[in-house]
Amino acid sequence: MLTLTQRSESRRVKRAEQKLREFGADVVERIRRVEPPKLSVPSRSTSNIIYDEKSGFYTLGDKFGMRSAANVRQVKKFAQMLCAADFCKSLITSEKFATLREMYYTAEGWETGSFSDQAESNALVEDMEAAFGLKREDMGLMPEEDGAAVYGELVVREGDVRIDATKAGRAGYTIPPTIDDVEFLKCGAKRVLAVETMGMYHRLVQEEAWKKFNALIVGLKGQAARATRRFLKRANEELGLPVHIFTDGDPFGFHIAMVIISGSAKLAYINHELAVPNAEFIGVTASDIVEYDLPTDKLKECDIARLKQLQKDPRYNSEFWQTEIKKMLEIGKKAEQQAFSKYGLDYVVNEYLPSKLH
Amino acid sequence: MLTLTQRSESRRVKRAEQKLREFGADVVERIRRVEPPKLSVPSRSTSNIIYDEKSGFYTLGDKFGMRSAANVRQVKKFAQMLCAADFCKSLITSEKFATLREMYYTAEGWETGSFSDQAESNALVEDMEAAFGLKREDMGLMPEEDGAAVYGELVVREGDVRIDATKAGRAGYTIPPTIDDVEFLKCGAKRVLAVETMGMYHRLVQEEAWKKFNALIVGLKGQAARATRRFLKRANEELGLPVHIFTDGDPFGFHIAMVIISGSAKLAYINHELAVPNAEFIGVTASDIVEYDLPTDKLKECDIARLKQLQKDPRYNSEFWQTEIKKMLEIGKKAEQQAFSKYGLDYVVNEYLPSKLH
Repeated sequence: MLTLTQRSESRRVKRAEQKLREFGADVVERIRRVEPPKLSVPSRSTSNIIYDEKSGFYTLGDKFGMRSAANVRQVKKFAQMLCAADFCKSLITSEKFATLREMYYTAEGWETGSFSDQAESNALVEDMEAAFGLKREDMGLMPEEDGAAVYGELVVREGDVRIDATKAGRAGYTIPPTIDDVEFLKCGAKRVLAVETMGMYHRLVQEEAWKKFNALIVGLKGQAARATRRFLKRANEELGLPVHIFTDGDPFGFHIAMVIISGSAKLAYINHELAVPNAEFIGVTASDIVEYDLPTDKLKECDIARLKQLQKDPRYNSEFWQTEIKKMLEIGKKAEQQAFSKYGLDYVVNEYLPSKLH
Repeated sequence: MLTLTQRSESRRVKRAEQKLREFGADVVERIRRVEPPKLSVPSRSTSNIIYDEKSGFYTLGDKFGMRSAANVRQVKKFAQMLCAADFCKSLITSEKFATLREMYYTAEGWETGSFSDQAESNALVEDMEAAFGLKREDMGLMPEEDGAAVYGELVVREGDVRIDATKAGRAGYTIPPTIDDVEFLKCGAKRVLAVETMGMYHRLVQEEAWKKFNALIVGLKGQAARATRRFLKRANEELGLPVHIFTDGDPFGFHIAMVIISGSAKLAYINHELAVPNAEFIGVTASDIVEYDLPTDKLKECDIARLKQLQKDPRYNSEFWQTEIKKMLEIGKKAEQQAFSKYGLDYVVNEYLPSKLH
């Protein structure tokens, strides 16, 4: 069987285990030298989050802080990080995954004392991701939710199981939280067509858009989950597929696309594994609303405020986005992707998408 | 290949087509007799929603209203219903499905004039469901969202595609919005274990709880979607599987279970197709919180108010529920299903669930 992608998972896991071991060894070594154990952690504060024009996504600058067991205010946090690293190592060794919430509850049994709330244990995991240069998934921590639905000519392997994304049912193959564990075996598609709503996803599956456009149809279910973004990144890099994003014509839809393209500021420390800077927005624009005479809703106060924010956001600093945002503010209207049904259920597949994809 | 279930879908679709034809024929006949066309629609107002002790779920009483083309205030609505019925007939004939939102936008092209908002077109669909005794899905209208994830020994057929729910990937087989279109081919499981969160779903899949309990693991993703409820109903009736529901120990979790068991008041007109009155709650109770010494959160004001509502809700009128709700109010605490990880990730599979399932 042709394996398109290397089993990158085992390399990832080995690297994660190695990083955790190095951390442990460093702590032991410092204790032997009668020095306080410490760890340098890149700062995730706003002042250290930088939009990297060249790579096209948010990344961290070079500021960092020191977590030290010698600092009374940090000693509990440092001890918790040791316990968390140990927990992750045992996950890796036993080939298990746990959710952030399970780790939070597991900490009830740690000698260091438990976390006061989950925000605290989540922040600790983010510290570890930034400090070790690992995704939490590489350390055995998985997101709570599944990723998007995928339909089209893609065959993958999860463990011993081979899955054909045209034979997993109408609802498609669901991207698991453990996406880096998935091997791409075979891909007949030439592009990815990611759509915001499951309504549109089912429309495209029903109209056989995956055949017509030779595409993997991805149903994002709104804002893309981490696993979905990682899938899109891998499809783009490993399979060489261009990614097209079809969203509603409103500020929320624009941002769903932009987070896939340029990443979020909050995940700046990990965007190099998630962002797809060459992904293309083919969602509904203000120009489309006018040109197709679409059914619309009036922009709400919050839409207007959000659009004005986007105008100043460095990720939207291109002629295309500036023109379209300005135009949407002028016409004062937004439109959903399903609005094309005004012209019949298959209009979106027969007219709109072919025109957007050239 | 053994087909466990009759191809009920074709019967359903034929019945729906028949009902729509009868409606059309009746309208034509009345016009021929120079009478105004009209339709009797069961009332969905609160006063006509009755908790049926015997069947164990909410249902409609025998009040009804008359929609008449002779009434100036109803004529537009009546004409829209004719267009909607025609739209549904064409969906059935072309073997397509559309979302409620697509129908709303399609109505932009109707001669009757469009709907002022989607709430209006949704209400019209509910009128049709109640008047014709059909689910919207039978008329070709599908929910926007997919249903739950299923993992375990179940083989289904969707069209030409055969899907094994142990071979669809770790994220499982996704129940499609068109669940009545799915045939059950083979089932090796003896029960259904439906869990509230995807975190718990993935825990149970990972710990092979589906083997251990001979169960279909269903990940509800919070409040169960229509397609999920229909799946559970069919698994219970057609496959004869008992349904066990494992939720968080809080009023929201209780209600997720209760809506599966006894249906919602809002869908009283269709609960006979969705409710699973013999499903069993095995979620976290106030007694479990005490007995297992679980990590808890304090009840919020809104939790307390909600619990007090549940005390008066006829669906909770049993000794078990009254005792547990009272106890939860007394201890003032709630707990999540993942809280068992305090005792290790596999505790829930090795201890809690065996004890609850006897």
